[in-house]
Amino acid sequence: MHRHFDDELKDLKAKLLRMGGMVEDQIQGALRALVERDSRLAREIIENDHQVNALDVEVDEDCLRLLALQQPTARDLRLVTTAMKISTELERMSDLAENVCERAIELNEEPQLKPYIDIPRMANWALQMVREALDAFVMSDPVLARKVTADDDFIDDLTQQLFRELLSFMIENPQTITRAIRITFIAKYLERIADHATNVAELVVYMVEGKIIRHTLGK
Amino acid sequence: MHRHFDDELKDLKAKLLRMGGMVEDQIQGALRALVERDSRLAREIIENDHQVNALDVEVDEDCLRLLALQQPTARDLRLVTTAMKISTELERMSDLAENVCERAIELNEEPQLKPYIDIPRMANWALQMVREALDAFVMSDPVLARKVTADDDFIDDLTQQLFRELLSFMIENPQTITRAIRITFIAKYLERIADHATNVAELVVYMVEGKIIRHTLGK
Repeated sequence: MHRHFDDELKDLKAKLLRMGGMVEDQIQGALRALVERDSRLAREIIENDHQVNALDVEVDEDCLRLLALQQPTARDLRLVTTAMKISTELERMSDLAENVCERAIELNEEPQLKPYIDIPRMANWALQMVREALDAFVMSDPVLARKVTADDDFIDDLTQQLFRELLSFMIENPQTITRAIRITFIAKYLERIADHATNVAELVVYMVEGKIIRHTLGK
Repeated sequence: MHRHFDDELKDLKAKLLRMGGMVEDQIQGALRALVERDSRLAREIIENDHQVNALDVEVDEDCLRLLALQQPTARDLRLVTTAMKISTELERMSDLAENVCERAIELNEEPQLKPYIDIPRMANWALQMVREALDAFVMSDPVLARKVTADDDFIDDLTQQLFRELLSFMIENPQTITRAIRITFIAKYLERIADHATNVAELVVYMVEGKIIRHTLGK
């Protein structure tokens, strides 16, 4: 009396998209909490973290159930194991959005060091990578997935640029050091969110083409 | 004409242990490259990174093959999907050992800021967590796995302590800022290696008890 396997797969994809939407909201919210110096919002995002975690657990259980009851092979098998892995990647992104919130709360307690320009650019870029990586999964689109893996370099360049700028602040005025380091950490968190999006994209290429492209691209 | 499933599982565990041993060597080597200021060793470790990556791909393929051909259920199914996930965690630890090497190479080009004391302690602690998490997997031992998750706090405390110490260096002498930040990054990489060991341990508890403990412990 199993439901049709295709319907189950459709539900699984929908659940991952819902999870992805929640993670995107968290990242966007974390950025707003930073830029608008809204620590209450930051605390709210941290407190609502359990929602993404609950979905992660659900996806995992769904996949185990599908593997046990439907015993998929070939391409369907790969879709299910890929979904399990993507769910983990999304959950890690959610943790990083939380980390951004923690640093935002700390930064909001001191005068603002400088207007945030690069950080929102990085965040938007990372968000787009997350969105496109998930779209690539749902549509089994390796071309879009490869685009995402190529986008990763831009974030790394921005981090380097921001890092140099912050360094000059710190050297000129040691009073700024703690704040500058917290901002550096936020840049690193965003860089890691982009890395997780890249992981998702690489998993999609593997799922569709059976080719491992992680480990062959420069990190 | 399949080999006996139990033998396949034994091979899978052995492969993960081999991979774990390689990652431990990388972490230990990265620390030696830092403490003994041996950039050649650091470069060697970075170049040999493909070995762990190759094993990660192998474990993944082995697991897919086992799922497709043996169609395991219940506990065996969970063992195979857990192995897939552990392999990813190990591969990420390997990336972080590489990151330590990169920062070590940079640090070795300048005079040493201070004797490295906390960093080796953190590394040893992280190494033990990695080792115990893998032992917990191979022996299906949830007690040992829970011990690993409890050990994570110690590393976080050490990072905080080191961070405060480096901050005072930076404030006193801005010349030290770049080096101090690189050391902070290394501490963060080790913290993340410990986080991955914790992930492995949490996966083991789930595999054995069917209980999700990730998301319930404080991070």
